[in-house]
Amino acid sequence: MSNIDLVVKGGKIATSHGIIEGNLYVSSGRVVAIGRLDVPAAEVVDADGLFVLPGFIDSHVHFMDPGDLSREDFPTGSAAAAAAGVTTVIEHSHVYQIHTAEQLVEKAEYLANRSVVDFGLAAHFSPHSVDDVVNVWAAGATFIKVFTCTTHGVQAVETARLAEAMKRLAGRDAVYLVHGEDESLTEHAERVLKARSQADGGVIPQWRSLLAEQVAVASVGMVSRALGGRVVFAHCSHPSVVEIISTLRNWGAKVWAETCPQYLYLFEDEVRQFGAFRKFTPPARAQSEADLGAMWQLLRDGQIAYVASDHAPSTREQKESASIWEAPFGLPGIDTTSALLLDAALTGRISILRFVELYSREPARIYGLYPRKGALLPGSDADFVLVDPSARRVIRDETILSKAKWSPFSGKEVQGAVVATYLRGKKVAENREVLAPPGSGRFLPGPGARGG
Amino acid sequence: MSNIDLVVKGGKIATSHGIIEGNLYVSSGRVVAIGRLDVPAAEVVDADGLFVLPGFIDSHVHFMDPGDLSREDFPTGSAAAAAAGVTTVIEHSHVYQIHTAEQLVEKAEYLANRSVVDFGLAAHFSPHSVDDVVNVWAAGATFIKVFTCTTHGVQAVETARLAEAMKRLAGRDAVYLVHGEDESLTEHAERVLKARSQADGGVIPQWRSLLAEQVAVASVGMVSRALGGRVVFAHCSHPSVVEIISTLRNWGAKVWAETCPQYLYLFEDEVRQFGAFRKFTPPARAQSEADLGAMWQLLRDGQIAYVASDHAPSTREQKESASIWEAPFGLPGIDTTSALLLDAALTGRISILRFVELYSREPARIYGLYPRKGALLPGSDADFVLVDPSARRVIRDETILSKAKWSPFSGKEVQGAVVATYLRGKKVAENREVLAPPGSGRFLPGPGARGG
Amino acid sequence: MSNIDLVVKGGKIATSHGIIEGNLYVSSGRVVAIGRLDVPAAEVVDADGLFVLPGFIDSHVHFMDPGDLSREDFPTGSAAAAAAGVTTVIEHSHVYQIHTAEQLVEKAEYLANRSVVDFGLAAHFSPHSVDDVVNVWAAGATFIKVFTCTTHGVQAVETARLAEAMKRLAGRDAVYLVHGEDESLTEHAERVLKARSQADGGVIPQWRSLLAEQVAVASVGMVSRALGGRVVFAHCSHPSVVEIISTLRNWGAKVWAETCPQYLYLFEDEVRQFGAFRKFTPPARAQSEADLGAMWQLLRDGQIAYVASDHAPSTREQKESASIWEAPFGLPGIDTTSALLLDAALTGRISILRFVELYSREPARIYGLYPRKGALLPGSDADFVLVDPSARRVIRDETILSKAKWSPFSGKEVQGAVVATYLRGKKVAENREVLAPPGSGRFLPGPGARGG
Amino acid sequence: MSNIDLVVKGGKIATSHGIIEGNLYVSSGRVVAIGRLDVPAAEVVDADGLFVLPGFIDSHVHFMDPGDLSREDFPTGSAAAAAAGVTTVIEHSHVYQIHTAEQLVEKAEYLANRSVVDFGLAAHFSPHSVDDVVNVWAAGATFIKVFTCTTHGVQAVETARLAEAMKRLAGRDAVYLVHGEDESLTEHAERVLKARSQADGGVIPQWRSLLAEQVAVASVGMVSRALGGRVVFAHCSHPSVVEIISTLRNWGAKVWAETCPQYLYLFEDEVRQFGAFRKFTPPARAQSEADLGAMWQLLRDGQIAYVASDHAPSTREQKESASIWEAPFGLPGIDTTSALLLDAALTGRISILRFVELYSREPARIYGLYPRKGALLPGSDADFVLVDPSARRVIRDETILSKAKWSPFSGKEVQGAVVATYLRGKKVAENREVLAPPGSGRFLPGPGARGG
Ligand SMILES: [Zn+2]
Ligand SMILES: [Zn+2]
Ligand SMILES: [Zn+2]
Ligand SMILES: [Zn+2]
Ligand SMILES: [Zn+2]
Ligand SMILES: [Zn+2]
Ligand SMILES: [Zn+2]
Ligand SMILES: [Zn+2]
Repeated sequence: MSNIDLVVKGGKIATSHGIIEGNLYVSSGRVVAIGRLDVPAAEVVDADGLFVLPGFIDSHVHFMDPGDLSREDFPTGSAAAAAAGVTTVIEHSHVYQIHTAEQLVEKAEYLANRSVVDFGLAAHFSPHSVDDVVNVWAAGATFIKVFTCTTHGVQAVETARLAEAMKRLAGRDAVYLVHGEDESLTEHAERVLKARSQADGGVIPQWRSLLAEQVAVASVGMVSRALGGRVVFAHCSHPSVVEIISTLRNWGAKVWAETCPQYLYLFEDEVRQFGAFRKFTPPARAQSEADLGAMWQLLRDGQIAYVASDHAPSTREQKESASIWEAPFGLPGIDTTSALLLDAALTGRISILRFVELYSREPARIYGLYPRKGALLPGSDADFVLVDPSARRVIRDETILSKAKWSPFSGKEVQGAVVATYLRGKKVAENREVLAPPGSGRFLPGPGARGG
Repeated sequence: MSNIDLVVKGGKIATSHGIIEGNLYVSSGRVVAIGRLDVPAAEVVDADGLFVLPGFIDSHVHFMDPGDLSREDFPTGSAAAAAAGVTTVIEHSHVYQIHTAEQLVEKAEYLANRSVVDFGLAAHFSPHSVDDVVNVWAAGATFIKVFTCTTHGVQAVETARLAEAMKRLAGRDAVYLVHGEDESLTEHAERVLKARSQADGGVIPQWRSLLAEQVAVASVGMVSRALGGRVVFAHCSHPSVVEIISTLRNWGAKVWAETCPQYLYLFEDEVRQFGAFRKFTPPARAQSEADLGAMWQLLRDGQIAYVASDHAPSTREQKESASIWEAPFGLPGIDTTSALLLDAALTGRISILRFVELYSREPARIYGLYPRKGALLPGSDADFVLVDPSARRVIRDETILSKAKWSPFSGKEVQGAVVATYLRGKKVAENREVLAPPGSGRFLPGPGARGG
Repeated sequence: MSNIDLVVKGGKIATSHGIIEGNLYVSSGRVVAIGRLDVPAAEVVDADGLFVLPGFIDSHVHFMDPGDLSREDFPTGSAAAAAAGVTTVIEHSHVYQIHTAEQLVEKAEYLANRSVVDFGLAAHFSPHSVDDVVNVWAAGATFIKVFTCTTHGVQAVETARLAEAMKRLAGRDAVYLVHGEDESLTEHAERVLKARSQADGGVIPQWRSLLAEQVAVASVGMVSRALGGRVVFAHCSHPSVVEIISTLRNWGAKVWAETCPQYLYLFEDEVRQFGAFRKFTPPARAQSEADLGAMWQLLRDGQIAYVASDHAPSTREQKESASIWEAPFGLPGIDTTSALLLDAALTGRISILRFVELYSREPARIYGLYPRKGALLPGSDADFVLVDPSARRVIRDETILSKAKWSPFSGKEVQGAVVATYLRGKKVAENREVLAPPGSGRFLPGPGARGG
Repeated sequence: MSNIDLVVKGGKIATSHGIIEGNLYVSSGRVVAIGRLDVPAAEVVDADGLFVLPGFIDSHVHFMDPGDLSREDFPTGSAAAAAAGVTTVIEHSHVYQIHTAEQLVEKAEYLANRSVVDFGLAAHFSPHSVDDVVNVWAAGATFIKVFTCTTHGVQAVETARLAEAMKRLAGRDAVYLVHGEDESLTEHAERVLKARSQADGGVIPQWRSLLAEQVAVASVGMVSRALGGRVVFAHCSHPSVVEIISTLRNWGAKVWAETCPQYLYLFEDEVRQFGAFRKFTPPARAQSEADLGAMWQLLRDGQIAYVASDHAPSTREQKESASIWEAPFGLPGIDTTSALLLDAALTGRISILRFVELYSREPARIYGLYPRKGALLPGSDADFVLVDPSARRVIRDETILSKAKWSPFSGKEVQGAVVATYLRGKKVAENREVLAPPGSGRFLPGPGARGG
């Protein structure tokens, strides 16, 4: 038994059982108990009137470090995470790709002193060798990123190579995060649009069609169904994509749907209007509030498994300095995803327990971190967030800690605020001020490195 | 904060999150914490190698008290419950029916010193007045028992009267436990069989047909769907009945399926062979292991919500002393249900977590007792059971504590044993010996009495 | 080979294959050929620009003869049928019920000289004896009418008696037409409404609720599923009822949904407004055009099997002369059903081929008349209708040939007109004038009399 | 009206209505009437005891002419067709592909004197230009053949090119026959197997996997669903492929499943055993009679739309003269498909009416030939087959008229025999002897050439 370093008193602890009104006891960075006990503690935090939530987990971020530090780096990205209540990120960058076990180890070492929050690292599917894929999983990659199309400078993975990897990694519970857009359709559309010299925001939805997403998801889903590989479909943009995934699951495939705030809040019209500032792919496809409502329904009823930000920031200058074709893809999101989802939870679109599932428990489960992360049970890491449900704040560019310094959600007023973020028992942020230095966060090897 | 009366150390605490290896801290009869803390406790229980499970809940028992004490009474029935790890029962007896709020209060008072374990009391749907139904719910009945057929001396409830009650109780979350067999079909079959002077065990399946059950369930299900009343269908005997209930739920009805060990273990052939000793209704319908397997599959995948014993005992003499027509319906079950289900959990038919859901958490949720009962969270009642997964024992008539003194499962060897049962922090049974006197158990008013 | 009595030239013959442009050759009252042949014919009919459709079949009419000739009789009702293109009716009257084989034979003999068109006769489920039911089927009843509620002076059939009949008639393909409204719910609602002295049109929808219909259909459907009896649910009033029937069919029950124009065109509001003039049961339930649209969709996609008029006329005086409680149930419909459905077919709501299925082929198939009736194939009876698709007419009370002399559809302008009706090769009506005397129509014994 | 050239008397004419016992009257090569009329005819055929069926339609044959006349040519292939009751074939050969309108016209002219039966011609999707595809459809190709993989020397069609064609041909009801196997998976498997120097029959199922078929069908299905193009999936080899197609259809795609006798009768084990003599792709996948039974069930219930032979013959010498890798793909089938399916119809596996749908009506409908072909209605071409249901014969290599001179079904005894085949009123074959010379058959331009 251990001495208590910290006790959080009087908050509402959200677990999958429901809300427990009690204290959280922390020792050596772990939750050692929840309940009401009279034990001396080195430090007492008063959480009266606050929610005590498991630290948020954003499993899809690009911090560009190493790679392109003009867009983001780990110190800035992970600081933004901490301020937003995110205590674990899973990171991968297309600018500097990890294909081999050696590269993974090297990147983890390089980042040893660069992250404010805990982090896992994903690998890209190696263009060179399926052996690389097998090895990088065994070395601790959290997931293997697969592109079905050549995008962001990442080479498309052919069906046969993905199938080969699934066969080679059978029985080892490897997870693939699939960016699904059909190469043939997107490449052809690009050629046609460029031949017409079209260069406004309107090229985006034509270039990156819903059909391309449907074809890729259906194809990869068949491979998963036949070979048993666990597949998360990244950034599902439309209800019909989620429906395909649900059908595959009914047929026995181990598949999940990820979505992002951009598919829950933004409209296709904005893409046309704001061009590069809404350039991300797959693009926002909603024509109406009803379209967005259909996505929220899928989020509520469990057909969408979790939410991530797909944080892929660029500065205003970077977004503006090139044609619609050359402008970087992606949105900043790590600063705002929790704010948007908490607002939804506190205004009734989802429950607070569903919030915890979507942005903490479910990514923890799927990526092998649960119950160390994603829960507040005895034995869990003492990663937790104090949320004031009564606060209101407005998202503003000035408060964005990412190097992007802007957000597509600026101006939106949200209910609820992250008051403090604790990582393994240490307060790392308070009222959007980051208290902990880079290096506070640790590398979390994936399940393959733990015999998973 | 309170002093710790009891700490259970070193067990595997089963929660819906999974298994937590930690301690359980009890004060004033409640769980005050789970985890590992160094706090002084008046008493320490070593649970090394044991499961620590939430106290079992048997929501469908008949203790015949008041009514017919020759068959059972609360002291014997609740002692058998305690020995089996059941810390809460929901009781109702057809012999002495509760129709009014006054009767409910009176029965609760009468039982104040007669139960070893905590108990809720159900009411029968009043043959006199829907006002009675409304009032008895408000007075704290756990559920309203509805018969669609005139059985066990209970009058059938017509569709219109059930509908009227649902309208009157709308918005008050009343729960109806429905014994569904179509009156017309069972009454007619009885007439035909008696006209033939048929009097062997074979009359049972013809008298109480699957069709009668299907018709009643479909009819009541339609009423529930239209009027929003919450309905549990008692003792579902066949997969097709569960399928009807699932379809109703997909159509928006708030309906659940209950089943009992007799539909998971017994065969129709036994009914023919053993006559009165297998007379219960609806009867066992399984023709083969595959039929039983289909029920287990529904149990695993959640289409069956929970299990109860439907304990309705008679002594050997009572079973033998009358014709097949006059012999009492029912089986003793409170002694054996947990043993059978734990065996299934420890030999892989269901998981230990699914066991906890089926015989503790789900009845607690459906009947408004959760999370005070059905969980081991800070704030829950300290009702828990220590289970030794490595023990083996044989069910024998001599070990039956119910007045029945026999069991249809006698001779069956089971994996696992209930080592000790705690009710609100007090040990009430140990190694099948009951330690607590009648009166240890308290009445649990239903949600209608708590503004539910 | 036979001499040709009649050839119909140049029309569009609608078959389930599609439209054939060719001639129809008739000899001795039968179609002997379709095509284009140069054969001498005693008579030539020019059908240029017209559809040649199989004679319409209205399988649910009440001509009150014998019974209450003040409301309708066979000469008037069958004349109205002939004028509307209906060459076969299946008749039954609640006023004078047929329970036994003897009664059926007697009624058929009585009607030998009273019908302009061919007719089958249904029997009522006997309140006296299931033997009667077996015998009346064997004597040639087209279907057995079953009421689940005591309505129109017809006694409700208990589930057990229906089940017994299905067992007794197993393998003999008997068909039951079920008027499904739960007795308990309707009887209770009546008592409550009368106790309030409510007496406006608004009592109808409360008295005859959708729930009552759902409960009855679900119950009888279960019986059909278990025992294999073929059941048509009469006058389905709402999409949810049809959905229950479709689910039962997916589960293996041999069940069909019938509907009537009143559920495709009339609104619940009219019932409140017009009282007795919209008193029929189940009542019109549509709240909006969208509700009606849902019924049309079910009609198009085959979930509703066919349409009948449920012709049950009363004169204006009869409707007006009593309270809402005492006024007779029912609408006149035999004059107008074909006009309304042809209008739908010619304005695109359904196809002309679907019209033929709904009001000719499908009732012929279900009731064992096909392909003698319901088709225009060599060997079929030469019952056919010439329809002018370009004509327009207005439905008016003055043109109603039924004794009712009014229609709920008066004032509606419709596309298409029945130009001539032929029964077994003889023209029986032309331009709404009836040419043939009563006695032209023959009795069609049901399949039970033909060893079916 | 015309003089009657031919009357077929006394047979059972199978239509989708059922069996009509009557005569078939033919004038100038067309059916002019069915029925019983006393008209003089130049010729009378006695069909007493025989079925009179619409001429069979084999919509997937390869006659290799022009191309590789050592394997087959139109005179031999179409003679074999005529002997088997096939009066219409849709032909395309990979050896000599049709990509342009000019090539189509030229091939049709070349074949003017080479076919015994009527024929449509399919085109291959042009590797050069989508304009070609549009033009060849307009010129009268029956369908556009699409390969998703590079097989038989045909280049794979990328998703984007297929999508472009569907957009360009939108509203013109073009039909695509898709050979669906994923290029990436088959190409990769081939490389791996060759690297291992594997060269027995066992390479076939590994090379041409079920997964490859599933991936291709799902991908193309998504394109069809999004863009509305009508797609027939050729030679579906497995129930799971048909299930994907049914799901796509439920989602609104206009898609159909074709299968062939090899997927209804042959086992995967034979492929291993007989090597090149069972080399066709997708290969036979059945492991057991139950697997074949599942395909027959899909055939019966309509999920498989029709059957074709996929006749792609080679002589024994051609099959034997090369390695398993180099041996030609394909089986002879035009001689035997009708015999196998008629046997199934006469021994109860399917009904005789379902036979007519599968091998005549449905391909006629899908490919725009109905009701000129695929029916025996007035106006239809007088293509018909007399079948003796009581005959029995044994399929033998010696009776194969195709140049292949062997059959995988040799030795099988079948019920039923084609007694005579008539094409547009002329007898072209009798008792497996071909009476008509090449040139008797006419070219049938596709619907695109008729403004379809
Ligand atoms: Zn991506
Ligand atoms: Zn990304
Ligand atoms: Zn019961
Ligand atoms: Zn009971
Ligand atoms: Zn009725
Ligand atoms: Zn009626
Ligand atoms: Zn092919
Ligand atoms: Zn082919």
